[in-house]
Amino acid sequence: MAEQQSSEKDVFTFELIAQEGNARAGIFHTPHGDIETPIFAPVGTKATVKGITPAELEELQASLILANTYHLFLRPGEELVNEMGGLHKFMNWPHPILTDSGGFQVFSLSSMRKIDENGVNFRSYIDGSIQRLTPEKSVEVQEKLGADIIMAFDECAAPYDRKYSTEAMERTHRWAERCLKAKKRKDQALFGIVQGGIFPDLRVESARRISELGFPGHAIGGLSVGETKEEMNTMLEIVTPILPANKPRYLMGVGSPEDLVNGILRGIDIFDCVLPTRLARHKAAMTFQGRINLLNAVHTHNSHPIDETCSCYTCKNFSRAYLRHLLVAKEMVGATLVSIHNLHTLLELVRRARRAIIEQRYSDFAAEFLENYH
Amino acid sequence: MAEQQSSEKDVFTFELIAQEGNARAGIFHTPHGDIETPIFAPVGTKATVKGITPAELEELQASLILANTYHLFLRPGEELVNEMGGLHKFMNWPHPILTDSGGFQVFSLSSMRKIDENGVNFRSYIDGSIQRLTPEKSVEVQEKLGADIIMAFDECAAPYDRKYSTEAMERTHRWAERCLKAKKRKDQALFGIVQGGIFPDLRVESARRISELGFPGHAIGGLSVGETKEEMNTMLEIVTPILPANKPRYLMGVGSPEDLVNGILRGIDIFDCVLPTRLARHKAAMTFQGRINLLNAVHTHNSHPIDETCSCYTCKNFSRAYLRHLLVAKEMVGATLVSIHNLHTLLELVRRARRAIIEQRYSDFAAEFLENYH
Repeated sequence: MAEQQSSEKDVFTFELIAQEGNARAGIFHTPHGDIETPIFAPVGTKATVKGITPAELEELQASLILANTYHLFLRPGEELVNEMGGLHKFMNWPHPILTDSGGFQVFSLSSMRKIDENGVNFRSYIDGSIQRLTPEKSVEVQEKLGADIIMAFDECAAPYDRKYSTEAMERTHRWAERCLKAKKRKDQALFGIVQGGIFPDLRVESARRISELGFPGHAIGGLSVGETKEEMNTMLEIVTPILPANKPRYLMGVGSPEDLVNGILRGIDIFDCVLPTRLARHKAAMTFQGRINLLNAVHTHNSHPIDETCSCYTCKNFSRAYLRHLLVAKEMVGATLVSIHNLHTLLELVRRARRAIIEQRYSDFAAEFLENYH
Repeated sequence: MAEQQSSEKDVFTFELIAQEGNARAGIFHTPHGDIETPIFAPVGTKATVKGITPAELEELQASLILANTYHLFLRPGEELVNEMGGLHKFMNWPHPILTDSGGFQVFSLSSMRKIDENGVNFRSYIDGSIQRLTPEKSVEVQEKLGADIIMAFDECAAPYDRKYSTEAMERTHRWAERCLKAKKRKDQALFGIVQGGIFPDLRVESARRISELGFPGHAIGGLSVGETKEEMNTMLEIVTPILPANKPRYLMGVGSPEDLVNGILRGIDIFDCVLPTRLARHKAAMTFQGRINLLNAVHTHNSHPIDETCSCYTCKNFSRAYLRHLLVAKEMVGATLVSIHNLHTLLELVRRARRAIIEQRYSDFAAEFLENYH
C-alpha cells in the first residue's frame, strides 16, 4: 500500500500557487488534465450533465465534472461502463471526472436501507430490487467506472443527532481504511471523507483521523444537509486547518454562490452541486446578485438578457422574454439555456475568486460579493 | 399590388442552377440569406427546434427553419414577438425562416372548430378559449412574426372526401386571393398553397388557379395526411409540371428520407417535417438505410455510433450503448444527441441530392437510395 500511495502521489500532485488567509489557489494534476482550484464541478449524475452536451461543457471551460456511483451502479451498471472503456470514453468527457462513493445517495435516496458493519442494503429506485454496497464494493464499482478522483464509502448522519453522528463517523473511519485496502488502480486518487455532523469535537476527531490515513485529498461530507449556513461555516473553520495543506479539500454537494465564496474563504478547493442545472429546470437563473425567477410575469416583455455583464452563450444571444417563453412552453432548450448560464455563473465565480487570491485581494472580493448578494 | 409583387421579385429571386428530369438544384434568395435547394427545413414549432440550440443548428448547417403560426399566435402571441424585434431576433436565428399560416394546425390540432367563408373559430389548446383566424388575420400575424417566407391561409381536407376536398380547395383559392390583398410587408415572400386531396382533376385545377395568382413560390398542402405514398407521388407528378418552373416549390410537412428523395425526383425544392426531432424523442435514429430503435436491447453493449460513416457530432463522439443509456434514463441530452443526428441525416441527404442533380446523376442516386432504404 505504501508503494501504491507513492505512485498516486506522483500523478496527483497538488501545487499551491497562492494563499491569502485560508483561501488557496492551486493546481491539482490528474491523469486527464490539470484542475485549477478553487473549482466548481458540474454534476453529471447519470453520466450526463442534465440538458448540457459535452461540447457545451467544453465551451463553458468546465474542467472537473462529477458522476454518481449510486445511479451508475444501478443503471447502466459499472460493468457496461467499464466494457465501453470507462466513464471518460462512455460520456465523451476527456477531462477530469470525480465519482462519489454512493454513500450519500444510499442514505438520502433509498426508501429502505439496512446498515450493518459490513455495508448497506438498499432498495433500487429503478425496480425495487434489493442492492448492496460495501466499502469494498464501492471502490470496485468506482474502479470500473474509472474516474480520476474517487471517494471513500461513508455514512452521512442527520446533522443534529449526536449519537447517530458519532456512530456514523466512527463507521466512516473504519470504512475509510477498508476502502484504502480495497483500492487496486494506481491512476485514481481516493479521497477520504470527514463526517461528524454539527458537533465541533466530532469534526475535529474525524478530520484528524481521516488526515492520518494518507489520502491524496480530503472531502468534507455531511454538510448542506439541513444545518444552518452559520453551522456549516463554523464546521469548515474547525475542519480545514486540521486537513493537510498540501492536499486538495473538497466540500461535497455545496454550490450556491455565497456558499462557494464562504467555502473558499475557509480553505476549500473543490465544490460540486446539482443546484445550477436543477434551478434551471425549475426556472431560476443564478446571478452574482441573487436568483431570478424567469417565470415571473415581470420578465414577459423584457428584451434584456439574464445578466447584461455576463459573457455566456445564453446572455449573449437570448432575452429574458424568450427564455420565459421557452420555460412557460416547457421547451427543453429553455432548461438548456438557463443551465448554461447558471453553470457559467459558478465557473466564472471560481475563476474570479482564483484571480483574487492570486492577486491577494480575495477577502475584499468576498466581502463585496457577500454584501451585494441577496 | 403589382408594385408589391415586383418588389418581392427583386428580393426573392429563384435561380435554377441545374435540372435533371424534374429534379432541380437552385438558390432561393431571401433577405436573411440564400437557401440552396433542394432543402429540408427543421421545424421550430414554438420558436425553438425541440432540444436543439441555434448554435447546434448552425453547426448542422441548417439554412431554413420553420415556425408555426398557430402555436406562436396562441403563445407568446405575435405582438410580443414583434415587440422583441421579430422571430429572427427573438429566437436568435439570423438565417431564413418560414412560418406556416396556422391553417393546417387549426384543422388538425383544435378539438372544436367552426369554419365559415370568412375564417375559422377554434379552441385554444392552452386555455380552451375561443380564437379566430381569417386569411387577413393569418397574414397580419405572420407579418408581425416577420419570417422571410409566409404562407397563405388554407383549408386542409381529409384526403379521400371528394365533396369536402372540393369545397376546401375552392375556399383555399378564395382565401389565397384575400391573403395577397391583405399582405403589406415587402420583405416577405407569400407562398400560395395547392390543395385538392388525392383527386387528380382537383389538383390540376388547384395548381392552375394558384399559379395564376402570381405568388413568388408555391406549396403543396394536404399530403402526408393519411394517403398512401403512391398517391402522394402521383399527386406530385400531376401538380409540379403545372407550377411555374422559375419559382420554388414546397411540399409541406413531408420529411422521411424516402419522401425527400421521391419529392426531389418530382420537382420539389423545399421540405419541412417534425419527424427527425420527434423520432429522436421517441428513441428512433434515422439513417440512409432506415430507422434504428435505440431502445432495442441489441444496442446495450454496442460501442459503435449510430452510423459509422456519419460525420455528425453525435456519431463522431457517442456509442449506441451510451445513447441507449441516456434514452432509457430519460435524460434530455439523449433526445438532443439523436435529434442532432437525425437532422444531420436529412440535411446531408438534401446536400447529396443537390450535388447529384448538379452532376446529372440524380436518377441513379435516387434509385440506389430507394433500393437500400428499408
